[in-house]
Amino acid sequence: MQRALQLAERGWGRVAPNPMVGALVVRDGVVVAEGFHAEWGKPHAEIKALQAAAGKAKGATLYVNLEPCHHMGKTGPCSRAIADAGIARVVCAARDPNPEAAGGAEWLREQGIEVEEGVCEVEARDLNAVHLNAFSAKRPFLALKYAVSLDARLSEVPGTRTRVSEGAAIVEAHRLRAGYDAVMVGVGTALADDPQLTVREWGPVRVAPLRVVLDTELRLPLESKLVQTAREWPVWVFAARGADGKRAACLQGQGVEVVQVGREPGCERLDLGEVLARLWERNVRSLLCEGGGKLGSAFLMAGYVDRLYLFIAPRLFGEPGVPAFQGGRGRGARDWRTIRRVEFAEVTLFELKPEGAASAPSEP
Amino acid sequence: MQRALQLAERGWGRVAPNPMVGALVVRDGVVVAEGFHAEWGKPHAEIKALQAAAGKAKGATLYVNLEPCHHMGKTGPCSRAIADAGIARVVCAARDPNPEAAGGAEWLREQGIEVEEGVCEVEARDLNAVHLNAFSAKRPFLALKYAVSLDARLSEVPGTRTRVSEGAAIVEAHRLRAGYDAVMVGVGTALADDPQLTVREWGPVRVAPLRVVLDTELRLPLESKLVQTAREWPVWVFAARGADGKRAACLQGQGVEVVQVGREPGCERLDLGEVLARLWERNVRSLLCEGGGKLGSAFLMAGYVDRLYLFIAPRLFGEPGVPAFQGGRGRGARDWRTIRRVEFAEVTLFELKPEGAASAPSEP
Repeated sequence: MQRALQLAERGWGRVAPNPMVGALVVRDGVVVAEGFHAEWGKPHAEIKALQAAAGKAKGATLYVNLEPCHHMGKTGPCSRAIADAGIARVVCAARDPNPEAAGGAEWLREQGIEVEEGVCEVEARDLNAVHLNAFSAKRPFLALKYAVSLDARLSEVPGTRTRVSEGAAIVEAHRLRAGYDAVMVGVGTALADDPQLTVREWGPVRVAPLRVVLDTELRLPLESKLVQTAREWPVWVFAARGADGKRAACLQGQGVEVVQVGREPGCERLDLGEVLARLWERNVRSLLCEGGGKLGSAFLMAGYVDRLYLFIAPRLFGEPGVPAFQGGRGRGARDWRTIRRVEFAEVTLFELKPEGAASAPSEP
Repeated sequence: MQRALQLAERGWGRVAPNPMVGALVVRDGVVVAEGFHAEWGKPHAEIKALQAAAGKAKGATLYVNLEPCHHMGKTGPCSRAIADAGIARVVCAARDPNPEAAGGAEWLREQGIEVEEGVCEVEARDLNAVHLNAFSAKRPFLALKYAVSLDARLSEVPGTRTRVSEGAAIVEAHRLRAGYDAVMVGVGTALADDPQLTVREWGPVRVAPLRVVLDTELRLPLESKLVQTAREWPVWVFAARGADGKRAACLQGQGVEVVQVGREPGCERLDLGEVLARLWERNVRSLLCEGGGKLGSAFLMAGYVDRLYLFIAPRLFGEPGVPAFQGGRGRGARDWRTIRRVEFAEVTLFELKPEGAASAPSEP
């Protein structure tokens, strides 16, 4: 199953809104074929594995990290293909929460095929957390990405950019973007860093993530890279209702979509719940927030962060460096669980999920 | 040489003030014998390896992580033993800075033995940083140990203890203590945690580290574990000159040694340079500071920290949690180099040294 999960991950940035799936055909303890879902609209993992197995599938076991689909999509139900190939036993990790695709396990059992579920279920659910979230929540799956110093600061001086990650860690940061429907920053980060928020160091990505800026007062400059490239890759700017209409028109003239939302009760900040709801309405199922400290902390405090990517560089920025974690914990998690730790030369990446979190995150 | 370094490390907590040394005898590419310096006063690594090699040392190569000593100590010069055993070639990592022991490489060359130096020198110097420091600095080698949350906080609420490390990470923290001559905390930590600062989870340690508290106004309670156990394991308390004489007498009555020093010019804090100088005078060659945030940050700001042990737990404490890193960077390092990264279940240990730091740290 570990191998199935490895294969599945190759679909990162290529298969959304489908789940990432890998499959193996095993006979007498030997892997006779492998397959994975490589791109949205292309064959599912099970079909690829069965094709590769050819005649060897008869009586064999199929390992797959998600319940085989049982609906007629672009590729026909995998359940039927599995039965037709003569597979004797199916081992799968997680159930498919998609009401249209689910039911495969049950149907297979009815055909007399042995079905074992729940093998490596936690890992399988972590891998496809976005997909699993999409049928229960009414908001995008939210990941927060920070690159911080040892003293948990984002930069040495407010309003300026301090490059924290290097080399392979940058590639990983771009790879992460590729797996999300949208990438978001606060306007402070947009002003300080002038980022592009595109996937450049990794690819190819099938659909470039939507670029989103939270910009209460519409301060995003027309000369910013984000605005300048808005016709090439879409940019959405969320502003407060009543924000400067002329500036909004200027931005729209450059191809930026301006979305007006309310403010958080009792404070100046945009209503994050409304922002998430708006993104959800427009089919954004997953969102990667890349800061800054205020925005990320606000999401954390509100308990919206489902995944935390923390790149830690061996540096000390000290004051007046910008703290990544501001304020208390609010409704956010105290304890996190490390899903993955990777060393990129000097930089270490921690991928974390809220401890004890179910697959269904809080609604906005 | 990597193997020699591994062997050497087995002397941790057992050989000080001697260096940790491991040695291998290799003939025709095969390791025929190994040895390490296991305890102060016992045979050196080279002698152990040569004894184990017996007749096979003739014409062989000796790998050792430090230049073989050339003085008559408790065990006789290793240089002579190497020549007597018929070793043809010596490969060593770092030179011995001890003026009494040095000269071994040169003497061996004079005997017609081939000597190669500088193999894995950086690793060898990092391993024996305390020993290498002892002949150039006039202050102890200073290590700072912190256990922090992801937001670089030491505890959730000031004045209280939040256990950050667990299980194997605790054992490692005790192992670290064993390698230092003294362990230090600020009085705030002593009051909040009531620690023992002894080596309990690892051992046996040959000499228990001296326990040191910086306590400007002599607030350490007589009922504290540190004071209660002062007759068993020595405790030094540094106070400001002019601190309450009665309290000092009470502490001394319990077996605590009270040392009075000046204050840092222009502030209330004790003069850290004077503290280090006093420890040095009393043969404390290495010091592990275990916090809290104010004391650790003061050492960092002053540029005194030669080694940083950072245990990071996947938690977010938020405000009002106590920041581990307070204030700016002062003369301290911005960039650090990771020497070692270890995963202890959920906790990750980073062992770091100041980037570009030579073996000779700043004097107090």
